[in-house]
Amino acid sequence: MITLAIHGGAGTILRSMLTPELEARYLQGLNDALTSGYGILEQGGSAVDAVAAAVVSLEDNELFNAGRGAVFTKKGIHELDAAIMDGHTLQAGAVAGVREVKNPVLLAREIMLHSDHVMLSGKGAGEFADLRGIARADEAYFHTDYRHAQWVEIRDSDFYQLDHKEDKLKGEGKKFGTVGAVATDARGHIAAATSTGGMTNKKFGRIGDSPVIGSGTYANDRTCAISCTGHGEFFLRAVVAYDISCLMEYRGMSLQQACDHVVMDKLLPMGGEGGLIAVDAQGHYAMPFNSEGMYRGVKCSDGTQLTSIYR
Amino acid sequence: MITLAIHGGAGTILRSMLTPELEARYLQGLNDALTSGYGILEQGGSAVDAVAAAVVSLEDNELFNAGRGAVFTKKGIHELDAAIMDGHTLQAGAVAGVREVKNPVLLAREIMLHSDHVMLSGKGAGEFADLRGIARADEAYFHTDYRHAQWVEIRDSDFYQLDHKEDKLKGEGKKFGTVGAVATDARGHIAAATSTGGMTNKKFGRIGDSPVIGSGTYANDRTCAISCTGHGEFFLRAVVAYDISCLMEYRGMSLQQACDHVVMDKLLPMGGEGGLIAVDAQGHYAMPFNSEGMYRGVKCSDGTQLTSIYR
Repeated sequence: MITLAIHGGAGTILRSMLTPELEARYLQGLNDALTSGYGILEQGGSAVDAVAAAVVSLEDNELFNAGRGAVFTKKGIHELDAAIMDGHTLQAGAVAGVREVKNPVLLAREIMLHSDHVMLSGKGAGEFADLRGIARADEAYFHTDYRHAQWVEIRDSDFYQLDHKEDKLKGEGKKFGTVGAVATDARGHIAAATSTGGMTNKKFGRIGDSPVIGSGTYANDRTCAISCTGHGEFFLRAVVAYDISCLMEYRGMSLQQACDHVVMDKLLPMGGEGGLIAVDAQGHYAMPFNSEGMYRGVKCSDGTQLTSIYR
Repeated sequence: MITLAIHGGAGTILRSMLTPELEARYLQGLNDALTSGYGILEQGGSAVDAVAAAVVSLEDNELFNAGRGAVFTKKGIHELDAAIMDGHTLQAGAVAGVREVKNPVLLAREIMLHSDHVMLSGKGAGEFADLRGIARADEAYFHTDYRHAQWVEIRDSDFYQLDHKEDKLKGEGKKFGTVGAVATDARGHIAAATSTGGMTNKKFGRIGDSPVIGSGTYANDRTCAISCTGHGEFFLRAVVAYDISCLMEYRGMSLQQACDHVVMDKLLPMGGEGGLIAVDAQGHYAMPFNSEGMYRGVKCSDGTQLTSIYR
């Protein structure tokens, strides 16, 4: 069974906070990403290419906090994180705090395939992007009025927002903006990718879980492919993605059992709000979250197709 | 039982490559670090403070690739990585690619204790250091003739060295320069810390496993505290430190069994050269490595004290 699952962030996303028009736009964005990634799987493409295509679609959509729609940092710029992992080869690529790269997930894939490294950061990552011909985009490309307004409201404070930590802004609550995709391809290989702009008004070069292999992103054909979204610090401390893999490999849990255990029984007691998407090599999927909502979608070769926002 | 274990890097370290004088200096450096960290444990101090003190001692010693003795990057500067984790609280702090911070491990501890974040990077991490009064040191402090000569030899190439990848330089072979410490304190709490300058001639803002919670550094009172040294990319892909923790927690392996399994049966077949130090809450320790040597030392309240370099 081939499967593609995607997310566009989790958090306090209540029906009362989204207008019907905005809700429809989010669902359309999720469907576009599913179409983009699933098309590759349907044509016999690899899980790695499918998750990259789905994440590119979400990065290019200004509704989501990644790529074009990335939030502003304390300094009014955009610092982007992304990771990708191939469950067949256990190869991985990640980028942290890079600027002016149009699609950070494509840079992460380039690092995975064409460098001796797993994780590059900051200006140096941009230099590698140029060397490899990865598309750049200037700050203006990442300037969306919506994100700018979010930042202007808090930029003079020491406050930062996980996309939205408070209900200050119309249409959203405490939302952990990240995008991600996981896929099972026709050869039974799996892959995961994650991309984010991080926290609005973030400073000090903060890195969350998204680009960290084992925490926000992980894939292994023998167990699962995982992409997380949530309060990154908790996901880092709990090594969430690899924990799910280990519960399956060492404890014999199913994908769903392992995901539920980590999201509900481990993260929730720590105060770690968020969720994740997961697939295994058989094409099973899970999309657990302990927050009010998670932008999510899944499409499988058994005919399943759904996009959803709320609990 | 209270225990402190430390390492100063692993790799192709052969008896024939070290002069007796240099060997004595390395062993002295290891003993100094043991004394520094163990003194804290003996006085009833915490495992976190003990590993920080031991790593500070190694960072201040120009023989080891961390702090003062850090290797030069492609651009002729020093970019430092470090992490620390408290097994009692599961709190963690890490810094990646920071410049001109005298003791990166102390910055990592400050991030753990006095920020809302786990991982800070680059210039932003330096700004946080200043805000919190963490000691800075200028580039001149990190200029050691030995490291400079290593860099001059390869700076015009695209070649990089994991401290030393080739036998070009006198006194060392393929050595993965990193320092680390793990400790069990009198209350049965454990902690881990790691610090490194990374690879000689590294570029593109490369981040290895050292500052990544779950890969190069991890601590959890229920299982183990781990600090790794080796070819970081493999340690990242294998999520080495947390894998050992999971083998203990989910498979019931002993500390020694879990460490041996990961270092010998998982890393070695991947080509992942290196080693690690580990303790559990009972004060047991393990120091496995699959390379020719590893600078290492351990001191326990049962009277054990040893420092060693070769197999």
